[in-house]
Amino acid sequence: MKTAITDMFGIQYPIIQGGLHGLGTSPLVSAVSEAGGLGLLTAGSFDSKEEMLLDIERTRHLTSKPFGVNIAIGIRKPMDEYVAGVIEAEVPIVFTSGANPAEFVKPLKDNGVKLVHVVPSVKFAKKAEEIGCDAIVIVGYECGGHPGREDVTSLTLVQKAVREVSIPVIAAGGFSTGASLIAALSLGAEAVQMGTRFVATKEVVLHERIKEKLPQLTENDTMIVKRSIGKPIRVMATEQAKELKALEDKGATLEEIMPYISGEAYLESLRTGDLGKGIFSLGQTIGLIDTIASVGDTIDQVMGEARRVLKRLEHYEKL
Amino acid sequence: MKTAITDMFGIQYPIIQGGLHGLGTSPLVSAVSEAGGLGLLTAGSFDSKEEMLLDIERTRHLTSKPFGVNIAIGIRKPMDEYVAGVIEAEVPIVFTSGANPAEFVKPLKDNGVKLVHVVPSVKFAKKAEEIGCDAIVIVGYECGGHPGREDVTSLTLVQKAVREVSIPVIAAGGFSTGASLIAALSLGAEAVQMGTRFVATKEVVLHERIKEKLPQLTENDTMIVKRSIGKPIRVMATEQAKELKALEDKGATLEEIMPYISGEAYLESLRTGDLGKGIFSLGQTIGLIDTIASVGDTIDQVMGEARRVLKRLEHYEKL
Repeated sequence: MKTAITDMFGIQYPIIQGGLHGLGTSPLVSAVSEAGGLGLLTAGSFDSKEEMLLDIERTRHLTSKPFGVNIAIGIRKPMDEYVAGVIEAEVPIVFTSGANPAEFVKPLKDNGVKLVHVVPSVKFAKKAEEIGCDAIVIVGYECGGHPGREDVTSLTLVQKAVREVSIPVIAAGGFSTGASLIAALSLGAEAVQMGTRFVATKEVVLHERIKEKLPQLTENDTMIVKRSIGKPIRVMATEQAKELKALEDKGATLEEIMPYISGEAYLESLRTGDLGKGIFSLGQTIGLIDTIASVGDTIDQVMGEARRVLKRLEHYEKL
Repeated sequence: MKTAITDMFGIQYPIIQGGLHGLGTSPLVSAVSEAGGLGLLTAGSFDSKEEMLLDIERTRHLTSKPFGVNIAIGIRKPMDEYVAGVIEAEVPIVFTSGANPAEFVKPLKDNGVKLVHVVPSVKFAKKAEEIGCDAIVIVGYECGGHPGREDVTSLTLVQKAVREVSIPVIAAGGFSTGASLIAALSLGAEAVQMGTRFVATKEVVLHERIKEKLPQLTENDTMIVKRSIGKPIRVMATEQAKELKALEDKGATLEEIMPYISGEAYLESLRTGDLGKGIFSLGQTIGLIDTIASVGDTIDQVMGEARRVLKRLEHYEKL
């Protein structure tokens, strides 16, 4: 399936793995790229540039196909050294998110890197085009992780972004199936980015106790927390997340909510499988995911369904 | 364009006008049906059964094509007499919403009426199928008016409903364009229901002062109120709506918020164009609507775009 995005990245299918803090490492990334999508290493998952460079090497041992690096700006630490690392390692694709990537545009583009910025609103989509990004990801309210503050869903955001920018648009938030891939293409997107769907795979390095819980969840089992500090995030509706929300509703201070939202608590829960620690990003589309499959089978299933949907739509075309 | 829903209703296009309290009257309804969609009179707009019967007659003078009646149950008053009126007038299609229509299933179906129930969740979709409804409308978080309490968006709800029920699914919430119609069909729906899009038409009887405001609004200009009483509703983000939300956030009583949410205040605002009275339902998709067109031109535009999108998708099919 050929789109502006598959052309831009030299990939087989218009399916991109979302940036997944702590989970976007070589086992998942290489599997996504090897299966014809685009895997993204999540820079923030690594304690240092050197660790990231090591995992870039590991990924290259596992696949000869293109992959990229996702760099979340301003969330955890200065990302300059990771940007330098990407250039040093000659990774051809970078996705940025979290804040304006303006300072990184010149160094990345001077080195031939394709730069895609992840935005939660049309306003920021236009800004990303202005500063020279090659494409944008627009993320709707239903997404796992960080939607915008205005709670606008993918249906509207994707169409509006396609109207307002001339660079290719990648749809994110609620896309996990072949049917939703075709929906995204209908809305004018050139690819989808899937986070939640790839969290529910065999290859992702995530404690089995969390992984086996995922297929049992429904579309009602996510919630938004961290609104009180202006950084809404959609997470699994665990007891811990509900406690956090209740604290926020009571006007808790940053100090009081910190044990729930710290990166350390999250990384510990990934390792130990104890969801009593930290919060765990998850999209509403988890309600459509009922198995833990290999990445290859997942992409096959998505593309198989996409082809069946196209066949069905062809029937309308003839009328 | 032929789908299970166009077949069921004998209509040309899989486009259904949403139930619009105070606005779903003969001028709009006849225009939608005449243009090849399905118009729905909103029973709650009429003070009595007799008034509704009169408007059914008016609609029949304006179009010979099929139209239906939307009956919101349990929101304003007992709807038994309106159901009796529909049967008496031999209207062939009823959409119910707001509460379980179980008591009306037998009388309606015994009289050959097709019954569609509007639901905000998969659980209620299954219930509607169980009690004998002919189809369901499933409404996502982005909709104008009443979404569910669980804030799940159309992207996930439509797909999940299609998996879980065997009666046809109509997608609502965020659908206003030809691209989104094809997205809905991709997700497995057999039609879309559009509310907000038909509010922004020449024919709808709505004060010009409100109407001319609509094309200027963006996708960020709606908000949800009435959560405090367990009946979330998405409305235009007017000063009045923001005041109401602030009151709710401070724990206001039902009595305190009543001036904002009463049906009388709403109906007065429709007549006077004064949005300082009441709240005005509106979906996020308003951000994609930039003109007030006739219903005929609107449906032409939607179907024209839908055909162009199908043509574009055909290109993927060949790859």
